[in-house]
Amino acid sequence: MGLREKFKVVIIVGVPGVGKTTVTKLMLEKARNEGINIKIVNFGDYMFKAAKNMKLISHRDELRKLPLRTQCKLQLEAAKRIVEDSEKLDKDSFLIIDTHSLIHTVSGYWSGLPLHVIEILKPDMIAVIEASPEDIVKRRMRDREIRMRWDERTLDEIKFFMELARNSALTAGMFVGAAVPIIINKEGKQEEAAIELLSKMKSL
Amino acid sequence: MGLREKFKVVIIVGVPGVGKTTVTKLMLEKARNEGINIKIVNFGDYMFKAAKNMKLISHRDELRKLPLRTQCKLQLEAAKRIVEDSEKLDKDSFLIIDTHSLIHTVSGYWSGLPLHVIEILKPDMIAVIEASPEDIVKRRMRDREIRMRWDERTLDEIKFFMELARNSALTAGMFVGAAVPIIINKEGKQEEAAIELLSKMKSL
Amino acid sequence: MGLREKFKVVIIVGVPGVGKTTVTKLMLEKARNEGINIKIVNFGDYMFKAAKNMKLISHRDELRKLPLRTQCKLQLEAAKRIVEDSEKLDKDSFLIIDTHSLIHTVSGYWSGLPLHVIEILKPDMIAVIEASPEDIVKRRMRDREIRMRWDERTLDEIKFFMELARNSALTAGMFVGAAVPIIINKEGKQEEAAIELLSKMKSL
Repeated sequence: MGLREKFKVVIIVGVPGVGKTTVTKLMLEKARNEGINIKIVNFGDYMFKAAKNMKLISHRDELRKLPLRTQCKLQLEAAKRIVEDSEKLDKDSFLIIDTHSLIHTVSGYWSGLPLHVIEILKPDMIAVIEASPEDIVKRRMRDREIRMRWDERTLDEIKFFMELARNSALTAGMFVGAAVPIIINKEGKQEEAAIELLSKMKSL
Repeated sequence: MGLREKFKVVIIVGVPGVGKTTVTKLMLEKARNEGINIKIVNFGDYMFKAAKNMKLISHRDELRKLPLRTQCKLQLEAAKRIVEDSEKLDKDSFLIIDTHSLIHTVSGYWSGLPLHVIEILKPDMIAVIEASPEDIVKRRMRDREIRMRWDERTLDEIKFFMELARNSALTAGMFVGAAVPIIINKEGKQEEAAIELLSKMKSL
Repeated sequence: MGLREKFKVVIIVGVPGVGKTTVTKLMLEKARNEGINIKIVNFGDYMFKAAKNMKLISHRDELRKLPLRTQCKLQLEAAKRIVEDSEKLDKDSFLIIDTHSLIHTVSGYWSGLPLHVIEILKPDMIAVIEASPEDIVKRRMRDREIRMRWDERTLDEIKFFMELARNSALTAGMFVGAAVPIIINKEGKQEEAAIELLSKMKSL
């Protein structure tokens, strides 16, 4: 329906290596300094928790190797749980959901924001954090964990995947009328990106 | 559902500077010369009217500076009103809706054609008017009003925004099974673009 | 809803000239050799059958020249019939649907996978077969039938259409949470493409 009366929901997405975690942390600090009430959840954590409860896997990285239908069920379960856990937030609060708009599963590209998930989460905003493919490669060199999460190897592959992920976020926005800012996180300019993100959140 | 039994609905979109107004006017003239009954409405006018009634703003350009949730409500209200005002059109008539597929709001990119709006308008066609970034820049130089509506400054920014707007129109078409012609308005060839648009409308 | 409990549904799409028919045939052979139960249907055949029953056309190529609203009805009818005809498939079987994600009709680009069709077909996977524009042109030269089905003439036009068709498949995947593998069919490597497709199907 596109209309929400309660707390504001902001989904933050970005492919591994764009610096999503850093920008989000800086934004949180600034928001809390301004007295804004924010709850933040990680979508993958909720999926993993559901999978562990069902005794399907023991390590988070195994999530995207599960059969796709199982991942679909976990995804839906996670979305419902996140909304349940946020019921007490008041009208001026923000629920931040850290997730991915596109996932490279063994079955192919798979959206983290399909229609039935968006209809549950009802985001006001889907913020896409991006960086230049060159900056992404630099961060990958420094960070072993990001390296493991990357299927894309060349600059062209990174650029291609980032474009698909961006389109996926824009389409998800159309499911519910959410705004989709694209925030460029330039190397060494994380502060600016965090300020831009917070400023856009405040315009909702 | 994708099936409509009544009058035909054609949404015309295009980023500022592609010459959408001129092409639409020329098409209207030609259609009326052929005895085709057409009603044309401007989506933004309907949003502005709703906003004025609620005493929110006094100038149309302030629309996209309103909080996003307010814009969402105005957008939904406009869609409903447009359909109500068109009830008397007969089966062979056309309702033309002049609007944007993507809007650059203070909160980020925001679709003019989200799912809940498309489900109300039920378009048969979403015609995308495009022009080369070079032609768009030329028109911008000549037209102060377009200049004010542009956030994109470089040729690359214009190209990027036009691609996102095109994808947004194609996605909106998928919500309801609408055809999405992309009509190129070449400098000095507005007549040809208008003829192509009308010809596609007649094939619905 | 995104959850399916019965047989698996795989939609295979690809623009004319990518070698979709060959790759699909090879995959079928391999799957049947492995004892996998597969039913394959052609979406266009179902649309044509419905059109013939209504005495609308006598040749399949006339389908996309019908008024768009008629095509919409035939498309919906075909989707329903395909699901009806597959009721007896068991949980481990696959229903393969050979179709197009984007069609170049007289009214403009038109999706073969709009929301209301996807909601009926409920695919687990939408596999996109692609090839380099150069390989596509080579195949066009050799095959008169493909040549007739092509509206795109230059390498740039082929590339552009293939990108729109890919986006259309990715968006359709988001309607239902389907995986969207992009499988590159390199000249002379059809075997590899078929193996990749089957392997992804088995991961569902």
